[in-house]
Amino acid sequence: MTDGNGNDTILLAHGGGGELSDRLVREEILSRFPSRELARLADSAVIDFPGSRLALTTDGYVVRPLFFRGGDIGRLCVAGTVNDLLMSGATPLALSLGVIVRDGFPMGDFRRILDSVAATAAEAGVQIVTGDTKTVGHNAADGIFLTTAGVGVVPEGRRLDYAAAQPGDAVLVSGTLGDHGIAIMSERQQLGFTSAIASDAAPLVEPVAALLAAAPATRCLKDPTRGGLAAALNEIARASGCSIILEESQVPVREAVAGACDLLGLDVLNVANEGKCVAIVPPDQAEAALAALRSTRYGREAARVGRVEAGKPLVVGVNDLGGRRLIEMPYGEQLPRIC
Amino acid sequence: MTDGNGNDTILLAHGGGGELSDRLVREEILSRFPSRELARLADSAVIDFPGSRLALTTDGYVVRPLFFRGGDIGRLCVAGTVNDLLMSGATPLALSLGVIVRDGFPMGDFRRILDSVAATAAEAGVQIVTGDTKTVGHNAADGIFLTTAGVGVVPEGRRLDYAAAQPGDAVLVSGTLGDHGIAIMSERQQLGFTSAIASDAAPLVEPVAALLAAAPATRCLKDPTRGGLAAALNEIARASGCSIILEESQVPVREAVAGACDLLGLDVLNVANEGKCVAIVPPDQAEAALAALRSTRYGREAARVGRVEAGKPLVVGVNDLGGRRLIEMPYGEQLPRIC
Repeated sequence: MTDGNGNDTILLAHGGGGELSDRLVREEILSRFPSRELARLADSAVIDFPGSRLALTTDGYVVRPLFFRGGDIGRLCVAGTVNDLLMSGATPLALSLGVIVRDGFPMGDFRRILDSVAATAAEAGVQIVTGDTKTVGHNAADGIFLTTAGVGVVPEGRRLDYAAAQPGDAVLVSGTLGDHGIAIMSERQQLGFTSAIASDAAPLVEPVAALLAAAPATRCLKDPTRGGLAAALNEIARASGCSIILEESQVPVREAVAGACDLLGLDVLNVANEGKCVAIVPPDQAEAALAALRSTRYGREAARVGRVEAGKPLVVGVNDLGGRRLIEMPYGEQLPRIC
Repeated sequence: MTDGNGNDTILLAHGGGGELSDRLVREEILSRFPSRELARLADSAVIDFPGSRLALTTDGYVVRPLFFRGGDIGRLCVAGTVNDLLMSGATPLALSLGVIVRDGFPMGDFRRILDSVAATAAEAGVQIVTGDTKTVGHNAADGIFLTTAGVGVVPEGRRLDYAAAQPGDAVLVSGTLGDHGIAIMSERQQLGFTSAIASDAAPLVEPVAALLAAAPATRCLKDPTRGGLAAALNEIARASGCSIILEESQVPVREAVAGACDLLGLDVLNVANEGKCVAIVPPDQAEAALAALRSTRYGREAARVGRVEAGKPLVVGVNDLGGRRLIEMPYGEQLPRIC
């Protein structure tokens, strides 16, 4: 459809529930997502559920810009939701996709985002089985917001829980930190180091499967998104009642990201990631877990970065000289609309 | 938290994933929703799943105004998602709640909306088990958007499908039509007939359970939301390949709603409802289904309004004089932001 100026855009009328909505859904959405359930356009999707423990998660995506080096809002929403399921020990089964988009949003961008959702879902091996699209006025939203929910099945006997971390456990990260947050920041502020830095947005199906096969006693997984590794480790410390010691020199950070953090006065531990996970693993399975992560595409730069200790529920950073600092839970907004 | 002018509002920093986000979630959200899974604040909720067929649905809510006679955006989001599960024959199990809210949004309104979500969830017997809150800048959204997803279990042997409607089936509606759409329109345009008209937003757990117990061969259910009864019946006609004959004089409409429709030049069949369902029921179970609906709080004004016939997949309205008209799928946006 074209707006008053002849541009091919989303129109308010695309959200009305009538013929025009129907056409948008059939031509632009169903054509991209090969799900028989989605194609039924029923009020809910009905899928076979092969288990008795279900994982449910949701996330809203408001990132700006919509397209950035290494990804876009579409890749981000699938990766984020799939990863949240994986962090609970679940095998992702299906996603829902809720779209809120403003009148006048370019149809080309809309299609590009849906294509990215479809490609990332295919990569992760999940289907979009249900969805909803709402349009709002030109000034009521600054573009497009996506909200995905995901369901997964938790295998019998698997219980990942932040509270299960115990003294002696190893702390692993699946790769370099800070890439997503710095990529977004550099796009937004046109800082000029975009060429070397790209978002890490990725679905972690493969590394998590490898990790859990190699280290079945893994205590918990956590993706260090908003608030970064600092927030993730603080949450685990609080839930488990243990200290977490982070050997800061072991934390993998790309040189360009470290340089950007220095320039911007940021602690990379507070910067968001969208394709990484933290794993707390018993010490006797730590090396196997690390090798398993490193055998996968998104886990090649995995590292062992610390340990759990008895003590106050705090995160303590230790540098190569033995200096110690408290790594606090970040307070407020470091960088709005990072995801 | 107070903004620069001392007002208690949402701040951009509430969305940062740090201490301030944590406080918002614990003080304002967890306190309202009694779910142990939600309280874990894990990446996904994990719930027991008592079956092998799962229903998944999602909907975004962008209604304006946020508060209206008969409900608010919070009641609407729970009712809408619960009803979408029910329409698939599922028993609602759990909901997720995604919030996108602008910087400066009044904290009092935020709390009032969450209270309404909590009260409606309690009424419907479902828990909010996972959620996500994103904040955006003052000008990036005009208030608050909610996106809920819901999961439910579909009992063995139950298959509701629009395609299952057959010639001879009865068409029932669970109550009066047009209340939600006209209530919103009258609030928005200050039309002055607000006193007599209120939204019907309600979770239909009780009437649907009664209906399916009394009429186990029910072919399908559909909630006539955006696009109204006209869109709902057209979807069923298209999916089943049958004609649907609507006896227009049998359609229950409140006098004040009918008057408002006349005044505004609207066809009540195109107006949105948020607490009603259409049921296609085999003729021998139609009277039992109607009696069952009428025995419930939200089904007291249920009516038999038409029948399925062999023929083209169209919806035909018949008036008391035998006059016939084609009831078309509404085309575009009749009233933006109705839900």
